[in-house]
Amino acid sequence: MNDLIERIRLIRSPSIGPVTYRQLIARFGSADAALAAIPDLARRGGGKIPPLFSRDQAEREVAAVEKQGARYLVLGQGLYPPLLAELDDAPPILIARGNLNLLDKPAVAIVGARNASAAACRFARGLAHDLGQQELIVVSGLARGIDSAAHDGALETGTIGVVAGGIDVFYPPENETRQKAMFERGLVVAEMPPGTEPRARHFPYRNRIIAGISLGTIIVEAAPRSGSLITARLATDAGREVMAIPGSPLDPRAQGCNQLIRDGATLVQNAADVVEAIEPARPRVASPKLPYEQSPPEMDGEALDAVEALLGPAPVPVDEIIRLSGASSGAVQMALLELDLAGRLDRHAGNRVSLRS
Amino acid sequence: MNDLIERIRLIRSPSIGPVTYRQLIARFGSADAALAAIPDLARRGGGKIPPLFSRDQAEREVAAVEKQGARYLVLGQGLYPPLLAELDDAPPILIARGNLNLLDKPAVAIVGARNASAAACRFARGLAHDLGQQELIVVSGLARGIDSAAHDGALETGTIGVVAGGIDVFYPPENETRQKAMFERGLVVAEMPPGTEPRARHFPYRNRIIAGISLGTIIVEAAPRSGSLITARLATDAGREVMAIPGSPLDPRAQGCNQLIRDGATLVQNAADVVEAIEPARPRVASPKLPYEQSPPEMDGEALDAVEALLGPAPVPVDEIIRLSGASSGAVQMALLELDLAGRLDRHAGNRVSLRS
Repeated sequence: MNDLIERIRLIRSPSIGPVTYRQLIARFGSADAALAAIPDLARRGGGKIPPLFSRDQAEREVAAVEKQGARYLVLGQGLYPPLLAELDDAPPILIARGNLNLLDKPAVAIVGARNASAAACRFARGLAHDLGQQELIVVSGLARGIDSAAHDGALETGTIGVVAGGIDVFYPPENETRQKAMFERGLVVAEMPPGTEPRARHFPYRNRIIAGISLGTIIVEAAPRSGSLITARLATDAGREVMAIPGSPLDPRAQGCNQLIRDGATLVQNAADVVEAIEPARPRVASPKLPYEQSPPEMDGEALDAVEALLGPAPVPVDEIIRLSGASSGAVQMALLELDLAGRLDRHAGNRVSLRS
Repeated sequence: MNDLIERIRLIRSPSIGPVTYRQLIARFGSADAALAAIPDLARRGGGKIPPLFSRDQAEREVAAVEKQGARYLVLGQGLYPPLLAELDDAPPILIARGNLNLLDKPAVAIVGARNASAAACRFARGLAHDLGQQELIVVSGLARGIDSAAHDGALETGTIGVVAGGIDVFYPPENETRQKAMFERGLVVAEMPPGTEPRARHFPYRNRIIAGISLGTIIVEAAPRSGSLITARLATDAGREVMAIPGSPLDPRAQGCNQLIRDGATLVQNAADVVEAIEPARPRVASPKLPYEQSPPEMDGEALDAVEALLGPAPVPVDEIIRLSGASSGAVQMALLELDLAGRLDRHAGNRVSLRS
């Protein structure tokens, strides 16, 4: 339990994201040791010592979670969803309320437009129901439209809702009844601490959890450039199956899904198609891949200057910096960690970094 | 012209199909020589001498074609569509009426259900119009529904209708006006002689011409097990692009196309998608592949018995017979030709043959 408090302090400290968290744990062995090392690392990176989340704040969060009847899932421990742990930026901790047994079972995500047509919502509900009959857990985002329909269709058989804000926040407000029903009969998962109101930037983080928990993601009626398409991309990035429901070219709401299919997503029309598509991936639930092990960061006084000289405002792949610097992978990771903790680094998708301007 | 009469006699003789025709021409050098050799070949194959189409009958056909203002296209000569000539079973002669210049240009086929929805017909018409704007000729089968809509959309820019019966037969009857308009402003093509009423067995032959003339075939609203899906398969067999318009799984008329996409057809939503899909194949119009040259059949007294012993009522690939017989490819072809002309062989898709029971 003491370790949990330190882990919460580490991930809730400003400017420490999931990637930095994982590197600090790899380098220092524990959250406690990482917290102790941060001031010195930040100083070496040339920045101010970042404010840390206090023990008191962490204890208040734990109390709030317990009051909710929720509990923590810690990356690499116990009930933490094994497929989610495969992501490079897997959430270090999750807060979950409901039936934790659902986390063990093969799951598929159903996501789509908030303003979907009534026909598409009915279709999503039916598909979720049929997938439940195939012993698949249905994951979605507790949003309006397709998400809500998917949860409703699978409430009897097992459904997981991932919320963008705190576990005790109902967004949209009309989903309060649904979310409460899922506390009782499904499972609700949050990355943010209780009380967090969801903001625009939280939704892509929420979406990576939806895609990461699931063997595959099914998109129903997504507009071009919508959040559902982000979830599809995250699923692709995670090596998961992406499936889409087609529609007539005359229906503007079908364009996102049709384009996904053109880009390589599997066209699915019913639960049997979904089962066929994810079949090859099912064994992964029993034996997920181990997370990609980076070399633990190591101390090397000269690497920092070399790395800093190679960085600019345009994102560059970390691999390229390792190659160009001539330093070891571990030394470059440490230099990046120091710059990061000094508030001078931005991390981007695809393991790329830039100097904060 | 004399050669045309002999070619007509050869292909119109009962039991001589396009494959046999091509082998006879390859072996004997001319239609005239092939006709002279048939009685002897049939006798060797152990059957009766097949009745031949008479010179008189052929001359009457030519007169009927001329009266129509139509003309013949002869495989391997002049205006014969070069991509169609690539098929193993390319029609030896075609009868065409209208603007023959359309045969030189890159073409795509649009086919689909006769009882298509009004929305799908409107879509097909618009797509055909847009493809015409891209300097593509639109090919279809002059049937009700999607075919008619496709012809209408491309009448201004260039459209080719392939009919299953004679060039002077209007089927369905309500298409008389459309077919006559295409005599004037498009092109109508028939494989059968004038006066032929189309029968069920003619439609798959018609479909191979539609697919064979075209760089790719687009399917709009096809029912499972429909003729449009046969055209799609023929296009695949001919190495052409197969494209399909998706639809909602809630729409039963979308099932055929959605299944085609699942099976590998390219999902297309508009003319731009079609242009992109066929772009790599466009150079083929300028320099089509030469038809597959089989070894010309050659005489070998012993091969016939060996081949006959290997044949039964179940279709087997010709390649397998060549391998198992130990005879040369040419000798096996000749033995098959003899059995064929004796009325004792059936030829099947995929270059397979069986003994007629």
